[in-house]
Amino acid sequence: MTAPHPEPPQVRIALGDRSYDILIGDGLLSRPSTWAGLPAASSALIVSNTTVAPLYAARLREALAARYRSIFEVVLPDGEAHKDWQTLNLVFDALLSHGCDRKTVLFALGGGVVGDMAGFAAASYMRGVPFVQVPTTLLAQVDSSVGGKTAINHPLGKNMIGAFYQPERVVCDLDTLATLPARELSAGLAEVIKYGPIADLAFLDWIEASIDALMRRDRAALAHAVRRSCEIKAEVVGQDEREAGLRAILNFGHTFGHAIEAGLGYGEWLHGEAVGCGMVMGLQLSRRLGLVDEAFARRVTALIARAGLPVVGPALGADRYLELMRVDKKAEGGQIRFVVIEAPGRAAVRGAPDDLVRQVLADCTR
Amino acid sequence: MTAPHPEPPQVRIALGDRSYDILIGDGLLSRPSTWAGLPAASSALIVSNTTVAPLYAARLREALAARYRSIFEVVLPDGEAHKDWQTLNLVFDALLSHGCDRKTVLFALGGGVVGDMAGFAAASYMRGVPFVQVPTTLLAQVDSSVGGKTAINHPLGKNMIGAFYQPERVVCDLDTLATLPARELSAGLAEVIKYGPIADLAFLDWIEASIDALMRRDRAALAHAVRRSCEIKAEVVGQDEREAGLRAILNFGHTFGHAIEAGLGYGEWLHGEAVGCGMVMGLQLSRRLGLVDEAFARRVTALIARAGLPVVGPALGADRYLELMRVDKKAEGGQIRFVVIEAPGRAAVRGAPDDLVRQVLADCTR
Repeated sequence: MTAPHPEPPQVRIALGDRSYDILIGDGLLSRPSTWAGLPAASSALIVSNTTVAPLYAARLREALAARYRSIFEVVLPDGEAHKDWQTLNLVFDALLSHGCDRKTVLFALGGGVVGDMAGFAAASYMRGVPFVQVPTTLLAQVDSSVGGKTAINHPLGKNMIGAFYQPERVVCDLDTLATLPARELSAGLAEVIKYGPIADLAFLDWIEASIDALMRRDRAALAHAVRRSCEIKAEVVGQDEREAGLRAILNFGHTFGHAIEAGLGYGEWLHGEAVGCGMVMGLQLSRRLGLVDEAFARRVTALIARAGLPVVGPALGADRYLELMRVDKKAEGGQIRFVVIEAPGRAAVRGAPDDLVRQVLADCTR
Repeated sequence: MTAPHPEPPQVRIALGDRSYDILIGDGLLSRPSTWAGLPAASSALIVSNTTVAPLYAARLREALAARYRSIFEVVLPDGEAHKDWQTLNLVFDALLSHGCDRKTVLFALGGGVVGDMAGFAAASYMRGVPFVQVPTTLLAQVDSSVGGKTAINHPLGKNMIGAFYQPERVVCDLDTLATLPARELSAGLAEVIKYGPIADLAFLDWIEASIDALMRRDRAALAHAVRRSCEIKAEVVGQDEREAGLRAILNFGHTFGHAIEAGLGYGEWLHGEAVGCGMVMGLQLSRRLGLVDEAFARRVTALIARAGLPVVGPALGADRYLELMRVDKKAEGGQIRFVVIEAPGRAAVRGAPDDLVRQVLADCTR
């Protein structure tokens, strides 16, 4: 006899008393067991955006009605350009005007921007209230909702103001990926592909073999991609929650990528698009440092292109790229620190001579 | 043979790997040993305000010159009215425009407002950089610089946005109290007096016997007041860092006090003045709940008055007081939670009927 509702796959983030589960599956939003065991409170606040709220907020609200007497909603403008203090303050305004207290639970319903802002709001409201990540984009499901990094942008740098603050649970309902625009699907695949060269060549093989299935949103392929990505992230975060060392490898492609985002203005390219292109630059830097060969760099670059991502960066000029990268959070004493592929399947953080970086930028921008 | 520079008294805050020392003494700013063992970094940022920076920033900068290659300064407008996001952002602007990195150490040089803002900036900049409290007011030395509470105000409530984030060290240089305006000295004495009724009747006796010495800034009396206050706070915080229970007793007088501050507009009354008057209200509430007798309430009220503090609150109207107190962080599900004196020397958190609170407000406001 098989159970009518098999429990969905779970990935555990092991962080002592801050441990939590990532649930991955179909129809999770409406399944009562998804929300069982969350902290008790008299109120909850759903934080979403103008794109996602009309699609899924009612479903979430209905599912939570049994647990919370009052359920409020705040709908933020959509997009990275709004990941700022002004938008964050809309969450605080909602919390305070509804009389939310220290036990109120926040639900981040949306992509990475919503998760980052709801998470930082939860970390800061009354010095910390519980929150749950309900990521509705592939990028958020495989990366940003997991691991407790929350932040907003500052005009001088991305994610400069934030907190390490772990959610109570992450709920990845694969149904929500059905409504994802194609461009956002590709952006999410950038972070999926990332896990291959930095940590798992077998997964890289699988992504290459499955890229067409992923692009047509085959449910089983997406489920595996989300699960394996979360497993790798869980392992890294479990060893280094606050990015004292190892965790920085998850930023492969991000130093170049953040420069692209900031240089063009946040929101021009999607974060995942900038990371995809940034990985191409990171691979070329690794090649020029003699760490990987041209064949490996080409192989991963081809996969990034097949995922519908840009592989040539905007021509901001090398000086501007370098200036933007010097304020990256990994930089120390003005020295830029890059995540490089030390060998296929293994990453490390290190500096690189400016002239080498200029050569990479000359190769990879147009 | 006595050492030429006896080590100053220290109080230890025991919080596992977040433990730190409070140094208390004369001339600490200029003493090299004060700064020994702080985290290494290429840069430091002194956060101060327009009142304190001209008096002490040069002295601090000089003392730190041996440890940090670059020392930057940001001078904030003075006062509780500026404890907002806009002012906090001046700190982030300074950090980013100077290229400060994840190791940069912040020094909060000033009173409670500077400490709260520099602390929250340190908690949030790049998701957390080290910081040191250098409190220059009595209130900050005996209360706000110790225990890791950091926050800014929101128009709808005081300290609503912040973090629990512990400093690396607290440096209480008693010399800085010499330049403190009389009104600020009294405000600090409110928090000193607080420790008596909630935790230590012997200390209450001592404060009563020493109030004239404290008011004329007798150095030995101030040293003892700071030290004993920090010891009591250290004991409470060590047991309950994140205010799950016990720590709330340190908010005696604060529920009423915050309502006074918010109701009049931040900065009209000093925080310590509002707390002093709030304690009078808290004592009357405790009396009406049958927990302490009129003699005890009168005794502590007389001491508060001798410290130069207001013992009658502004006539905001009971409805407005209740409305403001319902958004206090201790409130749960719309129920106001008061810190009351259960018995002389012992405090607890509990609710109270609205009509009793109205009687207290009728008695204590004019």
